[in-house]
Amino acid sequence: MAQRDTDKGTAARTIPAAAQASASKERLRLWLRLLKSTRRVESQLRENLRIEFNSTLPRFDVLAALARYQDGLKMSALSGVLRVSNGNVTGIVDRLTQEGLVVRMQVPGDRRAMLVRLTDKGREVFAAQAEAHERWIDDLLGGFTLEEARSFSDRFETITNLDEEGGQ
Amino acid sequence: MAQRDTDKGTAARTIPAAAQASASKERLRLWLRLLKSTRRVESQLRENLRIEFNSTLPRFDVLAALARYQDGLKMSALSGVLRVSNGNVTGIVDRLTQEGLVVRMQVPGDRRAMLVRLTDKGREVFAAQAEAHERWIDDLLGGFTLEEARSFSDRFETITNLDEEGGQ
Repeated sequence: MAQRDTDKGTAARTIPAAAQASASKERLRLWLRLLKSTRRVESQLRENLRIEFNSTLPRFDVLAALARYQDGLKMSALSGVLRVSNGNVTGIVDRLTQEGLVVRMQVPGDRRAMLVRLTDKGREVFAAQAEAHERWIDDLLGGFTLEEARSFSDRFETITNLDEEGGQ
Repeated sequence: MAQRDTDKGTAARTIPAAAQASASKERLRLWLRLLKSTRRVESQLRENLRIEFNSTLPRFDVLAALARYQDGLKMSALSGVLRVSNGNVTGIVDRLTQEGLVVRMQVPGDRRAMLVRLTDKGREVFAAQAEAHERWIDDLLGGFTLEEARSFSDRFETITNLDEEGGQ
């Protein structure tokens, strides 16, 4: 026992290396947990969108981006908002156009640029999806209290803030 | 909305509607923050793997999976561990084989099944990458103290636990 106490004292004073190793392990564990969590939520969102709206995450993302820009977005800007690795914005916009949810318009003064904008129907459809999406997230993240959600959001800004330095 | 209150059970009985709306907003904000954070970290990992190891995340994931299974993994099991939407396991394994990092072996007693296993060189290369990966994560998540990382990991289990119910 005395020995352990001594060890503890010494450890406390000299531990930096060990504590550092342990911090990096915990951060790695947190990272793997975050990855697993976001995938789990995304896969549920994907399934819900398919079942309830016969839609997909990339389609949802395109509609969400357009809903934020009343005046429309250029195709190039739209590509930027799409989730990593979901590629085909053109195909998605083609389908949404056929379904009457978006329209393409010529950019005045720029013959080659096209703006994409939500139609009234598109706005309506997206409103329903956005409401459902918020409900799903509320459910999937229901294990967090309001206070936790708020404080975690704030703390996680430390990660995304790195972003602003680099541009993106 | 009334329906939702009922669904939510205890919480709904004691928490006013306004607070609930606000909780769902905070959970949505947390979700968007998590998405942004994981993408930010993944994109940095992608860049680091490319620059320091001339490699990619899917390749890293394949090596990591194989490192966990000394006896090798079937191609089908390997597909399962790959990140969403990165597809081509066969192509990745082909390249890793050419580079001498993995070998394919016949499964005894099953002519059609192939096992993939790390070579000694593969094990060495992955060890270096895994060490760098832990260092990068330690850096990217450096805004979290050891205690935060630990407690966040624990709390985020509430999300991934949903997983276990559904199988996956």
